[in-house]
Order: sequence, then structure tokens, then C-alpha cells
Amino acid sequence: MNKGLLIVVSAPSGCGKGTILKEILKDERFYYSVSATTRDPREGEIDGVHYRFYSREKFEQLVSENIMLEHAEYCNNYYGTRGDIVEEMRNKGKDVILEIEVQGAMNVMKKCPDAVSIFILPPSVKELERRLRKRGTEEEEVIAERLSKALDEISHANQYKYIIVNNALEDAIDDFRAVIKAERLKAEYAGEILDEVVKNA
Amino acid sequence: MNKGLLIVVSAPSGCGKGTILKEILKDERFYYSVSATTRDPREGEIDGVHYRFYSREKFEQLVSENIMLEHAEYCNNYYGTRGDIVEEMRNKGKDVILEIEVQGAMNVMKKCPDAVSIFILPPSVKELERRLRKRGTEEEEVIAERLSKALDEISHANQYKYIIVNNALEDAIDDFRAVIKAERLKAEYAGEILDEVVKNA
Repeated sequence: MNKGLLIVVSAPSGCGKGTILKEILKDERFYYSVSATTRDPREGEIDGVHYRFYSREKFEQLVSENIMLEHAEYCNNYYGTRGDIVEEMRNKGKDVILEIEVQGAMNVMKKCPDAVSIFILPPSVKELERRLRKRGTEEEEVIAERLSKALDEISHANQYKYIIVNNALEDAIDDFRAVIKAERLKAEYAGEILDEVVKNA
Repeated sequence: MNKGLLIVVSAPSGCGKGTILKEILKDERFYYSVSATTRDPREGEIDGVHYRFYSREKFEQLVSENIMLEHAEYCNNYYGTRGDIVEEMRNKGKDVILEIEVQGAMNVMKKCPDAVSIFILPPSVKELERRLRKRGTEEEEVIAERLSKALDEISHANQYKYIIVNNALEDAIDDFRAVIKAERLKAEYAGEILDEVVKNA
């Protein structure tokens, strides 16, 4: 069996990343990597589903043992990805999806040059603003902050391998699937196929 | 407008490469690069359609002017690809397909590291043998020679970027399309898209 892919996905808030991933994850070949964190669970959050909830001591231990593939601290809490679980799932042939922030994504790309990194863009920043406004729940200040953060994130988009514009959801999902299909056809994954083809020749 | 892709396709004889390309080329976004040769046209062959027929002098002049992207001599005749036409079509936004032998493909990959190289495999060498035999027109000796050539070509497959196994024609065509779609989503082609997205932000 071939080792699964490591897929890194980032997008500014409001780009439809969640909807795209929900559709992609219907295929059992994918495994969604659940982030680790030291923050307290919120109402309804389940350990191992929404996050892996760890104590600060446990998290720091995992970091010192080099088990975290990437991690960062926000608002006095750690967030990160357990590299051992990622490896285990890839070795089982699963394509592992990491849905992470730009900075974490950059770190993973540095550590794993074979990572399939995908940045999802809104059709335009104007449209992103419209989408954020449409939610209706946000204050002007929050919208401005989100937009400024989005622009900053977008400035890193060209450091990803692939860029998908979420103009129409179906097209964006098709694009995502094409990227994964193509990556699986890469020659470096074809060792076993080649052996099979020339077998008994 | 984005520059078109340079797509290099090789496959042993009998792998269905022609059928796959015929289907792919229905999309006008693609341009099939017509090879240049110094051999005489055969009955029914049209200059500029089946080959670009050149005199030996003309061909050698193109080589000395560095206009040939790749060329080789077989059976006392030159065969090659005009790089100037490839560039012209790519600059018009066309994805240019070169259907060439392994040696020529290697040369193009060396000169153009951004080339999208695809090797098409038969499901197995046994199946390839069956397909070649099924044609019924070939002598045993010719079949043995073709198979030996195929094995030699397949030994270079892992030097291509992508490997497609033509097990079922429809699947192979889907794979081919996914590779092209994914390549068009590569960040290095997204400069204009990024400009567009942040425009008037």
C-alpha cells in the first residue's frame, strides 16, 4: 500500500474552507487531523473530535519529545499538530488533512517538503467583505479586523503549492479533488505500480 | 492571460496514448505540437498536420539556430520539435502537448523543468503483449521487439512527473484531465488571480 498524502489547507475566514473540507471528508480515504490545544473545552466540544485537549505540562512534554509537527501559542494557549498520529495515518494509506493557520502551514511545509499545500481564496476581497457582512452578527470593527487578517494571509498564498479560488462551491470542490488525484499520480508514489506492471514480463 | 503549460507525453506502443490524446485534444485549449522531420512524406501525409517536412539543410539550420527544442536522428532521418512554435502557442495561453519518445522527453525535461511530463503505462506487460498480439498483423519477432522496447521505455517512467496506468480508458482520460487541472492551479500560475483577488481591497 502506498503512503497517504499530507495535505495542508489554509484560507482566510469566510472563504468556504469548512464547507469544501466537509464534502472532501465524505471519502473515507481522508483523515482529518484533530489539533491539540491547551485551552479549555467549550460547551459541546468533545476531546479527540474538536480538539485534543491537553494540559500545559503534557503539551510541553510532546513538544520537547519532538512529537509536535508544528505548534504555536495564541492568547496564552498552545495549539499544534501531533506528528506521530499524522505519520501513523499516512502509513495506513490515509491522506491526512491539516486545516491550519498560515504560520503553522509554513512550518509544516518546511519540515515536510512533500506536503500538498493548498490555499483557498475568495473570488475577491470585496466579495469576502460582503460574505462577512452577510453573516450579520459581526461588529464593523470585527469585520475590519478579519479583512485585514485575510489580506495578510492572502499575501502568503503564493508560498503554497496550489491556489483554489472559491468562486462557485462545486468548482472549488472539483479543483480540490483534481489536486489530490494528480498528487496521487506523481511518479514518486508509483513504485509499486511499476513493479506490478513489469511483473512476470 | 496566463502562459500555457508544456505537456510531455510518452508511452510504449499499444498503451492507448493516441486514443487518450484524441479525447483530450477535443478541448481547444490544447495545441498538439507537430513534429518536424527530414523523412519523406508517406502516402496521405500532410505537411504541417502529420509532420513538418523539412530538407536536411533546413533542419540543420534550425538546429544551429537553436530553434529545435529537442531532436534526434533515427534511421538516417532527423526528428524534432520546434521550440519557437511551442513558445508562441504557450504565450497565446495554449497548453502545448508534445507526444514524444523517451529520449526526446528527457531532453525537454532538462531544458524546461516546468514541463508537465506524463508517462502512460499499460496495466501490465502481459496485457500489453495481449494487446499487441490482438492486432494480429504483427510477426512474432516484431512483437518480441516491441515488448523489449516497451520494457526499456517503462524503465524510464519514474523520471516523469506523473504516471497514468491505462487500465480503463475513461479512467485514464479522467486522470489526464486531473493532472492538467491541478497543474493549472499551481501557485506559480496564480499571479494574475492573486492580483485580481486583492484588487480594490
